[in-house]
Amino acid sequence: MARASCGRDYHCCPDINTAVETACKSGFDFVCLPIVNPRYKREFIHGPAKNRPGPLSRSDLVLSGQDWSTLIVGKTSPWLQLDSRVEVIRKNSEAGFKQELAFASHLGLPAILIQLKHGKNANLARCLSEQIQAAYFQQQYWIQIPLISARDQADCLMEGGQTDEEREPQDDTWKWWHEFRTLCDSQRRINVVLELSTNLPDEEVLDRWLAEPIKCVMVSTNLFLTNKRGYPVLSKPHQSFLKKLFKLDIQIILTGADRHPDKGLHTYQQYLDHLWQVRHQDTDLQQYQHCLYMDNLWQTRSPPDPITQFAKGYEDYLQSPLQPLMDNLESQTYEIFEKDPVKYSQYQKAVYYALLGKIKPEEKETKSVVLMVVGAGRGPLVRASIAASHQADRKIKKVYAVEKNPNAVVTLENMKDEMWGDLVEVVSCDMRLWEAPEKADILVSELLGSFGDNELSPECLDGAQRFLKDDGISIPCEYTSYMSPLQSEKLYNEVRVCKDNTPSNKPLDHNFETPYVVRLHNCQVLAPPQEVFHFKHPNRDTVIDNTRYTCLEFDIKQDAVLHGFAGYFDTILYDNVTLSIHPDTHSPGMFSWFPILFPIKTPIYVKKNDRVVLHIWRSCNAKNVWYEWTIVEPTVLPIHNPKGRSYTIGL
Amino acid sequence: MARASCGRDYHCCPDINTAVETACKSGFDFVCLPIVNPRYKREFIHGPAKNRPGPLSRSDLVLSGQDWSTLIVGKTSPWLQLDSRVEVIRKNSEAGFKQELAFASHLGLPAILIQLKHGKNANLARCLSEQIQAAYFQQQYWIQIPLISARDQADCLMEGGQTDEEREPQDDTWKWWHEFRTLCDSQRRINVVLELSTNLPDEEVLDRWLAEPIKCVMVSTNLFLTNKRGYPVLSKPHQSFLKKLFKLDIQIILTGADRHPDKGLHTYQQYLDHLWQVRHQDTDLQQYQHCLYMDNLWQTRSPPDPITQFAKGYEDYLQSPLQPLMDNLESQTYEIFEKDPVKYSQYQKAVYYALLGKIKPEEKETKSVVLMVVGAGRGPLVRASIAASHQADRKIKKVYAVEKNPNAVVTLENMKDEMWGDLVEVVSCDMRLWEAPEKADILVSELLGSFGDNELSPECLDGAQRFLKDDGISIPCEYTSYMSPLQSEKLYNEVRVCKDNTPSNKPLDHNFETPYVVRLHNCQVLAPPQEVFHFKHPNRDTVIDNTRYTCLEFDIKQDAVLHGFAGYFDTILYDNVTLSIHPDTHSPGMFSWFPILFPIKTPIYVKKNDRVVLHIWRSCNAKNVWYEWTIVEPTVLPIHNPKGRSYTIGL
Repeated sequence: MARASCGRDYHCCPDINTAVETACKSGFDFVCLPIVNPRYKREFIHGPAKNRPGPLSRSDLVLSGQDWSTLIVGKTSPWLQLDSRVEVIRKNSEAGFKQELAFASHLGLPAILIQLKHGKNANLARCLSEQIQAAYFQQQYWIQIPLISARDQADCLMEGGQTDEEREPQDDTWKWWHEFRTLCDSQRRINVVLELSTNLPDEEVLDRWLAEPIKCVMVSTNLFLTNKRGYPVLSKPHQSFLKKLFKLDIQIILTGADRHPDKGLHTYQQYLDHLWQVRHQDTDLQQYQHCLYMDNLWQTRSPPDPITQFAKGYEDYLQSPLQPLMDNLESQTYEIFEKDPVKYSQYQKAVYYALLGKIKPEEKETKSVVLMVVGAGRGPLVRASIAASHQADRKIKKVYAVEKNPNAVVTLENMKDEMWGDLVEVVSCDMRLWEAPEKADILVSELLGSFGDNELSPECLDGAQRFLKDDGISIPCEYTSYMSPLQSEKLYNEVRVCKDNTPSNKPLDHNFETPYVVRLHNCQVLAPPQEVFHFKHPNRDTVIDNTRYTCLEFDIKQDAVLHGFAGYFDTILYDNVTLSIHPDTHSPGMFSWFPILFPIKTPIYVKKNDRVVLHIWRSCNAKNVWYEWTIVEPTVLPIHNPKGRSYTIGL
Repeated sequence: MARASCGRDYHCCPDINTAVETACKSGFDFVCLPIVNPRYKREFIHGPAKNRPGPLSRSDLVLSGQDWSTLIVGKTSPWLQLDSRVEVIRKNSEAGFKQELAFASHLGLPAILIQLKHGKNANLARCLSEQIQAAYFQQQYWIQIPLISARDQADCLMEGGQTDEEREPQDDTWKWWHEFRTLCDSQRRINVVLELSTNLPDEEVLDRWLAEPIKCVMVSTNLFLTNKRGYPVLSKPHQSFLKKLFKLDIQIILTGADRHPDKGLHTYQQYLDHLWQVRHQDTDLQQYQHCLYMDNLWQTRSPPDPITQFAKGYEDYLQSPLQPLMDNLESQTYEIFEKDPVKYSQYQKAVYYALLGKIKPEEKETKSVVLMVVGAGRGPLVRASIAASHQADRKIKKVYAVEKNPNAVVTLENMKDEMWGDLVEVVSCDMRLWEAPEKADILVSELLGSFGDNELSPECLDGAQRFLKDDGISIPCEYTSYMSPLQSEKLYNEVRVCKDNTPSNKPLDHNFETPYVVRLHNCQVLAPPQEVFHFKHPNRDTVIDNTRYTCLEFDIKQDAVLHGFAGYFDTILYDNVTLSIHPDTHSPGMFSWFPILFPIKTPIYVKKNDRVVLHIWRSCNAKNVWYEWTIVEPTVLPIHNPKGRSYTIGL
């Protein structure tokens, strides 16, 4: 997006036509208006509203259909109290709410803005669920929630002397949202509009919102301070939180009373015009400058790092993990991975040090090594190895490039003809079956998945190590997987709706029994990653056992929702040359691996100081490898994927 | 069942053939034996068991296939520790467990007995889940759980002076079971064998077990006391709990060392033979008398009341609520309901008092009333009304028998011809559409469902009351529904597997969005019922509104699992003449209504002192009436059945 999409919120709007026209001209993308003009008062107690004389609201003819459906976000009336304990108020509110939603549908408004004022919204949720169930067109419902409740805001003002740290908020407005969306069965058409408050809650409370489906942030003109030069600015904490929100591609709604309604300054253009007229009247500049400021803030977001750039468009997009043993990768897949600017230079470095370790300086003319690349693909590791040999000034007697994909072998053989000559021997064979003519000093492979072992590197290298010399080196020599508990409404919904390939012999919720490779974005990690499984190569155990079983305990810092677990890995290629997608040690600029997600079937509400206890198994039989996982605290869930019924990795 | 099915548990069994043969002869129904003879020791650390010399266990040829598959319950080895923290023990145990289960499947044993010794069983649950997933034949898994953990049992002995009330048990063995079955996804093939302990836990802890799928109770010979006459008996608390269990049609396993193994007294017959030989050696009689005692205890269960007799075979059987407005009832359905010994006598009593109320003694010759039966069916309310008129010595001018089912009208018209003559006028019409020739003094109806209003009595009577005189009487004049939170693994599973009529436009879990009429049996109510909806007739409101909305709060007394809510109703027919299926006030002997069950989609673990907050709505539109419900505490669930998407009652 070149700039943030920005809307103007009107509490009331006497002349909708002028308001919309000027909003368009001035560059606002949309306006928020009451669906029903407040002067049309209603009363439903005895019978339906149509008995009341006069129209419900302005006519639909005041705007074109095109304008209604693209420019107007409808707001439900502030008098609605669908969860009032007073039956007559509740029933009146229900009738009014239904009428307003029906009218908004009639107008074809793209979104409806509904305000939550407290935590008790069961009946509102029911009425909204009914509306969604009634299969109107795909209208969006924007649930407006304050960052801090009015009550806590008021307390804050009264006890002005106290700092935020000393006070426990009484209402956690995130809980309002959590209860509301759960009642509505986490419908994807229901999203959040977050109202920025003067005082911000703790950072971890803010971060939790980043795991929610936020569509908009609502910024009041009251929040602006005046800087030394007289310009309106937001405080540093506000700026910093807004920049985090901008990463979620949210929109902005500017709210707050127009301080000079008599001058009719509703638009950019009017403000610009006015600027010339009242050049020295700073107060008049104010609202114009608010808009300018927000745009500026958006533009000055920190520029995306290479991984973010690479991952653009893949945010929260679920991919099935590759099955390189079962399927042959496609040319494009090779091409993408070969572009990684970090991975192959690390491999080259690892081979470099391995060669130096194998051949002492005084032997460099007389000694040479046999190097094998198992899973050579289209040759990047062969190239890196040869480059390392030149760099280290050590000789390689022969490079065996073993590759099972016959399509990639075509590329390898062309490279041999064009570049490598006799130095490289291309072997078109599965490494587990190949009968090697000699043993290797260095075995180079890159069979790692986002979870380390999930592309069956252990099984492949166990098969290949029979042609590795007793003192031979495996690159990589170790890898470890990690997991963190994760909150993400977005990912929960992505998993829930992904229904491709549902064979009848799988359980109904088999999509929750599969891990996914995914660029984690609209989510929050609930505790630091912990080590899961570890593998070493070569493996000199008498009986090799690649099954694993781990139980991890995570301490939860604040109330949240557990939707699954994020998985990562790191690997030691050789000595201190490593690759990592562990968040704390991520290899800078490396984009070959996104994290892996292990979902759970039911979102679990976890409380502050709760412990999440995860069990995860790596199981194997003669044909397949698979994971099974579950939690036993704070709630027990069924074991996911028993016997690999929903997901296996084929050997 | 004429007698309890009874099995004999053997810790070991040197000669299986003799043991089984004698067990059969002596009247035992089955025996429990180790799957693997303990003398065949195994060690898996380095490689599979087949490398060990010698066979795994006795040959399958020692018994016929028929005997294996009907008489033998296999016990897994006591040395197995699938959740040991010591990896080598765990892996050995896994291998042993799989081998034993595979061999038990090979033998075709009907059930496998697996003992839980503590609360940590995630890996055991996983291995069992894999076994079940592997789709062998429908073997049963019996999970043996002590009523009191060994640790608490030991504490009890050490602190012998304290009474049970003073001590909090350290392990709640029900939680072992809850975690285990949840990990196994509440598989129906996994059931409980409850080990009776010397000391019994609190009554509410015992009652909670009655909501679990118990297959057997295991009774040790050590539990028997000797009464004054020298006979072995169980304590009163043991007897009382066993009688409760017997209602669930459980089996009994007698365990405990044979006190006279040298005499080889393993069978009834041998004991009987021995009886004659050692007539005066009471000690030898003991085990025989245990068996006799258990049989006797079974026989002396309290005899079933009329409702229990009527409900035989319907326990926990889910029925869709009747839709009498949409569907015409069948002859058999009328027949069953007409057999109720209580309902019609109560109606007769109500009409009796209503007639006395309408006609004073001095008017009895001069005054008469018009009585209408709306929903006359095959005439039981017409008969009851006429009988009441005779009993009260008051005149009825005319009985209008209004019935919309043309098939039932055939019966009514025959009765008119044969019995009633001009007194009764049969009207073949829907009461909501009928144009009555005159107004009624008394309007009699029976349109109530298990939840009171769920067969749309309110809507029907609102329609019918236009031909009720202003001072007319409606029988019934009021009804109220009630709900209680309910635990029942059995019912949860019944709802889960009921997949009939799954139209593609309904959600996957629509069976959890439907109430069911069901004879509640293997379940436990977690809190007393509370009032839900109330209706009064005639309804003289200006605008009649039959929508309802209630929020109820239930306090939970002990840790349990919430699976849904039980619904009941009571009604005032007239004055103090009532009908009720509320558990506290149930009309004795009345069997016309089973309770109604409102399930929830996810079993919710509720803790002692938790509050369960239920929201329930009765919604109406022009064509349908339906319920929506959910809970918001201790956990929020999605609203069930929004807009009646899974279940409606047709008007």
